[in-house]
Amino acid sequence: MKTELNVDIATALAAMAGKTITNVFLVACGGSLSIMHPGKYFLDRYADTLNSDVYNGDEFVTRDPRRLGAESLVILCSQTGTTKETVGAAKHARERGATTIGMTLDPKSPLAEAVDHIVAYQAPYTTGIPIDAADSNYGVLYMILAGLLKQVEKNDVVPSLLKSLNCLQPAIEKAHVQYASMFDAFAERFKDRSVIYTTASGANYGASYSFSICVLMEMLWINSQAIHADEFFHGPFEVVDQNASFISFIGMDETRRLEERTRDFLFTYCDEKNVLVLDAKNLDLDGIDAAFQGYLVPLIFFDALWKFAYKLAAKRETVMLDGRRYMKKITNY
Amino acid sequence: MKTELNVDIATALAAMAGKTITNVFLVACGGSLSIMHPGKYFLDRYADTLNSDVYNGDEFVTRDPRRLGAESLVILCSQTGTTKETVGAAKHARERGATTIGMTLDPKSPLAEAVDHIVAYQAPYTTGIPIDAADSNYGVLYMILAGLLKQVEKNDVVPSLLKSLNCLQPAIEKAHVQYASMFDAFAERFKDRSVIYTTASGANYGASYSFSICVLMEMLWINSQAIHADEFFHGPFEVVDQNASFISFIGMDETRRLEERTRDFLFTYCDEKNVLVLDAKNLDLDGIDAAFQGYLVPLIFFDALWKFAYKLAAKRETVMLDGRRYMKKITNY
Repeated sequence: MKTELNVDIATALAAMAGKTITNVFLVACGGSLSIMHPGKYFLDRYADTLNSDVYNGDEFVTRDPRRLGAESLVILCSQTGTTKETVGAAKHARERGATTIGMTLDPKSPLAEAVDHIVAYQAPYTTGIPIDAADSNYGVLYMILAGLLKQVEKNDVVPSLLKSLNCLQPAIEKAHVQYASMFDAFAERFKDRSVIYTTASGANYGASYSFSICVLMEMLWINSQAIHADEFFHGPFEVVDQNASFISFIGMDETRRLEERTRDFLFTYCDEKNVLVLDAKNLDLDGIDAAFQGYLVPLIFFDALWKFAYKLAAKRETVMLDGRRYMKKITNY
Repeated sequence: MKTELNVDIATALAAMAGKTITNVFLVACGGSLSIMHPGKYFLDRYADTLNSDVYNGDEFVTRDPRRLGAESLVILCSQTGTTKETVGAAKHARERGATTIGMTLDPKSPLAEAVDHIVAYQAPYTTGIPIDAADSNYGVLYMILAGLLKQVEKNDVVPSLLKSLNCLQPAIEKAHVQYASMFDAFAERFKDRSVIYTTASGANYGASYSFSICVLMEMLWINSQAIHADEFFHGPFEVVDQNASFISFIGMDETRRLEERTRDFLFTYCDEKNVLVLDAKNLDLDGIDAAFQGYLVPLIFFDALWKFAYKLAAKRETVMLDGRRYMKKITNY
């Protein structure tokens, strides 16, 4: 049970006490970048003065925002700590005088060596050992940002966050049970699809992005795009026909009505059997404060969808979930 | 020939003189949202103090960033001025005390009525009358932002921008000639493809996004995603095989090496005949200052690609470029 921020987070924040921070840059690549979107959503909703930006690692280095400097905090994340663009971004940020926090599994990795402060987290599905999602990349990022908000703006939502994080893993376990038969049915239905889209908005967008690019595209070689739930109506919806395949995220944050609107359209113009809906209203979120449900639901969805990915992979004969052509197999790019 | 900012831009800025502006929110939907990405790129590169955010119209309303207030400038864009989410965003911004500028073709539209200041622009391919791209949505947005930068931060890049804008339309005309035969070849090759991806970074990202969602998906019913050129290597590249179809944007801004890297990968693992490369190094950019080439190249690419879209549509028998199923045809969503 968490009653205070993880020790490395508290240590990093204590070291920054007294520093003026005006900008937060959230920088990573791929799946690690995806968690930064709800991080920014949190700051947008809670911060009076802190500005925040989300960038891919190498975009950050080359774009080189002019505001990056001594009043900037740059939070980076790489699971192995070896992602070269993210390591490069950390070095670049320090050269510009910014404070850097690196989130990684490996405290001896290049990212860990490149940053001012190392914050550890845990990852499911990498070691095979069950983790508490409170200590996942999402959970740790929220703790960093809530701690920062308390320190810089005297707005203390840390107790509510910690109480909610304590109730997250049980909610995930219950979601797995709840979704099991639906995932079986959709794995059978979707097994031969060449294109599967995801839709989401707000705090859910990152999880839908990660499922599209890191799971469907990377691991299953299925074409995809994470379509923003309102942008959907400004172009993408024209590809919809009865046979289109969608995974529709419907969360608990302030943008929920955008996601509902997309689902309603899909239920009208696409066979409902082709729309896998994850609606957080149907989840048991017992103990998670209403204020944090929107932020924690994407963790539940993403963890649940891993099971769906395994089921889908098992039905597809051509590609298994660990089948990659390029990543970590070729080096000449 | 432009020697000063368009009169409605100068009028809007004059009315704002003396106001403290700390945040710029760039808000629109779909194709109009796409121009906001290079707008933010410009501010990131040039602004010492101005923070900027890019949001879809309804995401902006529901997310309701806490920093939105009297020190905010919200720039909105809707071609017809009737996009309901963007009109809603303008009303929301004014209720929060922000200053609003609405870019639209129609000065009597709902968006025009909802904002403090109306800025007109011109659009190609809507009236059939040739326009000067300097007065397009992109050109006008850059003028607003450069004027704002001069007024708020005393950093005057307006003369360089205007000189460069004066040389834009000739560069576009030359690009059309240069690309014609390549587009013929790729229209024949791509005519039956069910998935065509675009890749870009930096100031080009918006144009690639717009081509993916508003042209390929909306008008041609071809599956797509605008893949960020570095994010490509963190998942999406696993869908690449010899037969994958890509449009690769390579511009002149600071992120160019990201786009080159993606092209190099595609040329290695995908048949070169399936990779349509637009490389700005091969364009005649005579008279466009080096500092603005990165910002103006996406206009050239996007204008050029319209011709490609028409050629592709002509080769595809099922769907014409004006063939839409839902947009402006159904109203119950």
